[in-house]
Amino acid sequence: MAKDKKLVEAITSMSTDFAQWYTDVVKKAELMDYSSVKGCMIFKPNGYAIWENIQKQLDAKFKECGVENVYMPMFIPESLLQKEKDHVEGFAPEVAWVTQGGLETLQERLCVRPTSETLFCDLYKNIVQSYRDLPKVYNQWCSVVRWEKTTRPFLRSSEFLWQEGHTAHATAEEAEERTIQMLNVYADFCEQVLAIPMVKGRKTDKEKFAGAEATYTIEALMHDGKALQSGTSHNFGDGFAKAFGIQYTDKENKLQYVHQTSWGMSTRLIGALIMVHGDDSGLVLPPRIAPTQVMVIPIQQQKDGVLDKANELKDRLAKNFRVKLDDSDKTPGWKFAEQEIRGISTRIEIGPKDIEANQCVIVRRDTREKIVVSLDEVETKLAEVLETMQADMLAKAKKFLAEHISDATTYDEFKDAVENKPGFIRAMWCGELACEEKIKADTTATSRCMPFEQEQISDVCVCCGKPAKKLVYWGKAY
Amino acid sequence: MAKDKKLVEAITSMSTDFAQWYTDVVKKAELMDYSSVKGCMIFKPNGYAIWENIQKQLDAKFKECGVENVYMPMFIPESLLQKEKDHVEGFAPEVAWVTQGGLETLQERLCVRPTSETLFCDLYKNIVQSYRDLPKVYNQWCSVVRWEKTTRPFLRSSEFLWQEGHTAHATAEEAEERTIQMLNVYADFCEQVLAIPMVKGRKTDKEKFAGAEATYTIEALMHDGKALQSGTSHNFGDGFAKAFGIQYTDKENKLQYVHQTSWGMSTRLIGALIMVHGDDSGLVLPPRIAPTQVMVIPIQQQKDGVLDKANELKDRLAKNFRVKLDDSDKTPGWKFAEQEIRGISTRIEIGPKDIEANQCVIVRRDTREKIVVSLDEVETKLAEVLETMQADMLAKAKKFLAEHISDATTYDEFKDAVENKPGFIRAMWCGELACEEKIKADTTATSRCMPFEQEQISDVCVCCGKPAKKLVYWGKAY
Repeated sequence: MAKDKKLVEAITSMSTDFAQWYTDVVKKAELMDYSSVKGCMIFKPNGYAIWENIQKQLDAKFKECGVENVYMPMFIPESLLQKEKDHVEGFAPEVAWVTQGGLETLQERLCVRPTSETLFCDLYKNIVQSYRDLPKVYNQWCSVVRWEKTTRPFLRSSEFLWQEGHTAHATAEEAEERTIQMLNVYADFCEQVLAIPMVKGRKTDKEKFAGAEATYTIEALMHDGKALQSGTSHNFGDGFAKAFGIQYTDKENKLQYVHQTSWGMSTRLIGALIMVHGDDSGLVLPPRIAPTQVMVIPIQQQKDGVLDKANELKDRLAKNFRVKLDDSDKTPGWKFAEQEIRGISTRIEIGPKDIEANQCVIVRRDTREKIVVSLDEVETKLAEVLETMQADMLAKAKKFLAEHISDATTYDEFKDAVENKPGFIRAMWCGELACEEKIKADTTATSRCMPFEQEQISDVCVCCGKPAKKLVYWGKAY
Repeated sequence: MAKDKKLVEAITSMSTDFAQWYTDVVKKAELMDYSSVKGCMIFKPNGYAIWENIQKQLDAKFKECGVENVYMPMFIPESLLQKEKDHVEGFAPEVAWVTQGGLETLQERLCVRPTSETLFCDLYKNIVQSYRDLPKVYNQWCSVVRWEKTTRPFLRSSEFLWQEGHTAHATAEEAEERTIQMLNVYADFCEQVLAIPMVKGRKTDKEKFAGAEATYTIEALMHDGKALQSGTSHNFGDGFAKAFGIQYTDKENKLQYVHQTSWGMSTRLIGALIMVHGDDSGLVLPPRIAPTQVMVIPIQQQKDGVLDKANELKDRLAKNFRVKLDDSDKTPGWKFAEQEIRGISTRIEIGPKDIEANQCVIVRRDTREKIVVSLDEVETKLAEVLETMQADMLAKAKKFLAEHISDATTYDEFKDAVENKPGFIRAMWCGELACEEKIKADTTATSRCMPFEQEQISDVCVCCGKPAKKLVYWGKAY
């Protein structure tokens, strides 16, 4: 058992040092590794499998709402990036530049895409002529590069994986509708599949995307009380269309500019899964997203018939579940610890005594509850356990979120909350950039969003005392 | 009908100008578009959907044989690329170099991956310690960049999409076994799913991958008689392991070098689909790979009940098939032409008279055969039609391949075959680089592979007359 202990002890306790706990989980669950390329990470099989499941399920939802997948070049010529003024100002300082191709120096630098608005605009300019060509609802799954100085696995790295949707519409109304529709697709996916509740709202002008008219966001709360921006959806109005000249002839044969949106979620979501559901034994994955939902672990597997029975059970379960069997020569205790570290939703223990009694033991990863079930009804019972676990994990995360939102009506209350009450702070804001900047400078908290569900919890701005315009969620953030 | 005619006439006849026919099909089927980034293409929805289907089905086959997916950085530091001598010589002249990150000039140039052997070696060096850590059978789906001067859609472009598998094994035998196993996975996939028969064999030293001990290939024959290298599988022996220092302790506690392989297929396969199955009306997609297997086209859709019935039919078929309904306000003739250009495997025509007779008409894309079926059994009949079509397309491609292989035992016969008999030429070879180079200089034909099934069709080299060592497939190639 010495070895088992070592495996578990390898993870720093969450309450001792949350940042170290996070790094330990990422490493011990074998999700990701540093590479010898500065700022770039390696997605190992356990980590990439989570992303594959996210892709598969999110992509199915996209297709249900008319999204078509494409693939655009990874390079953007400098002149193209510069066409929209705000956009280039936002991104130019953090892109990687290709200056040589083969043995030649390029006449024009190419940046490695940090995001692809400009490429999609260039495409739409060429393929949109008439109202019949609209809407265009394209998406791509790809990697993007933003030259970051400090990196953290899944949360911030020079290269990351994401999807970026880019749409063009005939009217402003339709663009706004699509912007909100995709934000809701994101929020529903996170809640239903990842068991992570989201706060939905609009970003302030300071926090919005470079070139957008409006940016909407979903914000999750991590276990340490910090917020994580988990997905954004932008309405560009006709700003990009004017910069790129994307026009169509309407039914009255008049030239009009299109209205555009873009929206994206990334491998950050894996960071959210770790920090919302993880515990001191490692990762805990909700069944709907877990690459392995159940690990069958034989007890006393050297005894006659145990491995056969375990294999038979695995094959039975493989019809309905994502199941694996650990028949390695490690001890059961070691196997339990590994299954727990990796966040595999459940394990099934089966040994000689179980076989004699025609039963096995399902153990939930989140609560460690042990459920003895008859082998005759293991499929039904396991399905029930996984469904209950999924629901319980969401309920727990919702409770945590609700318990970590505090209201502040005075600046002293606000500062006290930032110091002593980890989580979101709801406070009124006058709408001025100066107050946002002062709050950030004084407390490090930033405006996370102006929630869709507005309330007037005070009449004055929490910072300057002038008349309040908006309720804002504030918080420290990743 | 003027418009329908225009649509069809937009495609140059294959026999008039094959290259132009190819370009026309790519454009008119809306598979791909040029971008304003030199050498880079845009995969449009119709083209990307084919790639998605290839990915989905090939990835399932990979997982059946123990492959795990990962994602590695897209950048390779110059010093890492240089570690294996042959490898860097092969790739350095055609890579894109990142020299600036954000506002800073990088201390070391990074190349955008042209392939990722060096990154996987760097990873394996860190994660492989003992025989227990082997084998490693990793794969990634990604894009790679090779700075090409001339480009052709799907066949050659500066950036393309592919998968690259990279494995590490304890023994040379296991590595060789995996190399051949994956080549067979490729060949079977191409034959069973893409309906493209392959010639399998080993590359000559001249044609093998930079850094490999042996390269195996699958070669397909295009309709113009040119060969297309469609997938390769490389055995590296312990060459990379020695260059990177990838060692493990075996069961006797002795340090050993690992043996490695890599294998890849790319979006070139879409080019193969076009040039093997296409005709003068456009693309023809085998049902197993077609993003849309059947397009329901209502006839006289303005008449009462027609659209309802067509919709009902589409919904019924959606349970078992990839189906779409074209209810746009175009004429049926126009819709037929579009369905044909896009290569949608079948269409179902349904009009007032059909509805009255409780029937519909299935039309095969490949033969244009019309099959009248009762609406009561449309699912069964359509499934049969699609299966027959898949089998017929493979049989036709096999027949074409068999009819386009000629034997040459003298150099005159060889040169005549290159001129007058489009296809593969089988001829004996002495094994000398000089003959390979002379043949290429004299005829433009290159050695495609030394087939696994060797025969001695002559005792002497077709070029120099010295004793023959190998039967080789030669041909002009893309």
